[in-house]
Amino acid sequence: MTIRSATPADIPQILVFIRALAAYEREPDAVTATEAGLLRDGFGPNPFYFCLMAEHEGRPAGFALYFFNYSTWMGRPGIYLEDIFVEPEFRGLGIGKALLKQVAAVAIEKNCRRLQWEVLDWNTPAIEFYRAMGAEFLDEWRNVRLSGEALERLAGNTEPVGARQAIEAAQ
Amino acid sequence: MTIRSATPADIPQILVFIRALAAYEREPDAVTATEAGLLRDGFGPNPFYFCLMAEHEGRPAGFALYFFNYSTWMGRPGIYLEDIFVEPEFRGLGIGKALLKQVAAVAIEKNCRRLQWEVLDWNTPAIEFYRAMGAEFLDEWRNVRLSGEALERLAGNTEPVGARQAIEAAQ
Repeated sequence: MTIRSATPADIPQILVFIRALAAYEREPDAVTATEAGLLRDGFGPNPFYFCLMAEHEGRPAGFALYFFNYSTWMGRPGIYLEDIFVEPEFRGLGIGKALLKQVAAVAIEKNCRRLQWEVLDWNTPAIEFYRAMGAEFLDEWRNVRLSGEALERLAGNTEPVGARQAIEAAQ
Repeated sequence: MTIRSATPADIPQILVFIRALAAYEREPDAVTATEAGLLRDGFGPNPFYFCLMAEHEGRPAGFALYFFNYSTWMGRPGIYLEDIFVEPEFRGLGIGKALLKQVAAVAIEKNCRRLQWEVLDWNTPAIEFYRAMGAEFLDEWRNVRLSGEALERLAGNTEPVGARQAIEAAQ
């Protein structure tokens, strides 16, 4: 089994994994991501995400996709693990643990003190696995999301400060 | 009232706001951030966070601090609002809403389809305010965190893939 950083050539496989994970999370139709979007966002000069690929005997077996978040209390970046997935036929071989270990190693190397992610409340095996690793569950915090029309309504015709400053700088 | 992007000169005030928000969240001793850390992480070539300052009649009134996250389902970045705070004496003037609107405007400008944050489950006024804006609450997802010794134990002596590749590239 090998774990390596993803390259642009992995994007079709990354999208296969993203779709398989969404199906496992009972949202098979939720994926609207495209190969072009994943390429643009993960492999430019300021990538929005980072991705690790796991292979077993040369075949794609799983992936982990993460980005950096920020703790204002600690005054340090942390790592947020957005996705981790192992193909069913490769489960039980320690690949998920190896991917997690790699992400933890990146966190330590980047001087992050926290690795954070989310788990569905019905996914008891995963919850027990994370608890056994020493993870905490931050259950007093509720996740809030604004999207679609509600987000556009809030933004209204507000001109973003950053954009205006960029325009002024260019003049 | 004005809202503008933070500059390095705002860092002492940002730290005042971070501490005041932690006190409001009943964790007054949780802040170990330093001015040097906030400067390093927010104002380098690849900042880990972005910050907006609100002023009322020239006095610091509040702030919003955010970073970009990533949705693999949408194949797009989103904005995660880490902190939003208005000083008690300036509440009721619409400053919190104006900060949120600015963050939403940045989201729209950057082609993000989602703005996400967390709220403490006992903070009923905030929860009602967010609900009235059209926000959803993602209550089936539990937040998991690995930190301190548990994170170091998981990383073990794993050599990060990214680091090894960087070393190979340099040789």
